[in-house]
Amino acid sequence: MSDAPVEFFYDFNSPYGYIAAHKIADVAAKHGRTVDWKPFLLGAVFKVTGAQPLPHVPMKGDYARHDFARSARFHDVTYNPPADFPFSPVAASRAVYWAKGQGKARKMTLALYNAALGDAQDIAAPDAVVAIAAKAGFDADALAAGLQDPAVKEALKTVTDEAISREIFGSPFMVVDGEAFWGADRLDMVDRWLESGGW
Amino acid sequence: MSDAPVEFFYDFNSPYGYIAAHKIADVAAKHGRTVDWKPFLLGAVFKVTGAQPLPHVPMKGDYARHDFARSARFHDVTYNPPADFPFSPVAASRAVYWAKGQGKARKMTLALYNAALGDAQDIAAPDAVVAIAAKAGFDADALAAGLQDPAVKEALKTVTDEAISREIFGSPFMVVDGEAFWGADRLDMVDRWLESGGW
Repeated sequence: MSDAPVEFFYDFNSPYGYIAAHKIADVAAKHGRTVDWKPFLLGAVFKVTGAQPLPHVPMKGDYARHDFARSARFHDVTYNPPADFPFSPVAASRAVYWAKGQGKARKMTLALYNAALGDAQDIAAPDAVVAIAAKAGFDADALAAGLQDPAVKEALKTVTDEAISREIFGSPFMVVDGEAFWGADRLDMVDRWLESGGW
Repeated sequence: MSDAPVEFFYDFNSPYGYIAAHKIADVAAKHGRTVDWKPFLLGAVFKVTGAQPLPHVPMKGDYARHDFARSARFHDVTYNPPADFPFSPVAASRAVYWAKGQGKARKMTLALYNAALGDAQDIAAPDAVVAIAAKAGFDADALAAGLQDPAVKEALKTVTDEAISREIFGSPFMVVDGEAFWGADRLDMVDRWLESGGW
């Protein structure tokens, strides 16, 4: 069996990405795998596909708003989204690429997701991201500088371009040894694919 | 607890509806419930929402075609769709409303779904529907007449209108005591909602 990390693509606006972010590391660890945390800008993908955020789609929007909260409860994840939704995920995503250098992408992801979608905090501004990360134990000054690092900015752009070229059209997307699964409701399939290498 | 039937809305073109059709009666029966089989014309709903069939959506189409087959295998359901896809589900849907009068909506649903999505048969024409139903033990002449019955035609129209007014925008939709779940991947939630009445 491969020991390649499970690729986890997500946008910080995505409630289903938020739910899966709380689960994917445990699913991967069960099978001796790690997670490659890959935040990206779903809005850039939507420009290519012509898709709209779920809450804006007729009929589907009402269902989605209800299902976000219901799915979070189903998975025992606290859900309390901000009023201003969707927000810019750029600073939060860059913070993850910065933390990745320290092997702390998961910790940063959960700190920011929990603040935004679990505690209705505004994480659009870099200052807000730095403050939340500092509370979680990250070095505020280093992060503030990191958010301006061209390599960090480039990492987010690269993964967003990669998402488009690999047809990662939603959030979350989980890729196991090249096999792509879309949605928090595919965690059971990810689990089985990791177990058996396919079916 | 309620003993109301689980409402099962589906379109005969829907691979996820096909998968769920094989599962929903057992999930309902586990909790002492029956299923109210409600085929409808998803195309009419798409005219309202502006949605397109999944296989026609950029990027999503490729994923969907792959996921249809993978999901069917995951659920141990034989999947072999027809070349001409989507097809008109009108005759097949009417056949179910005709069979409903005899308490055989499930039997008719599975016979037609299995022929279309499990055996690549063309079920668009009323003659084809009658032939498949006859093989499954239904009275061919009675069904041929039934497909022309104004009450049968009206039943399909009524449920399609109901789907629009109740914001049933996809297939399958499963409604438990007023709580709506979209997608074959929500069968576990349906199971838990039937068990606990919510969460």
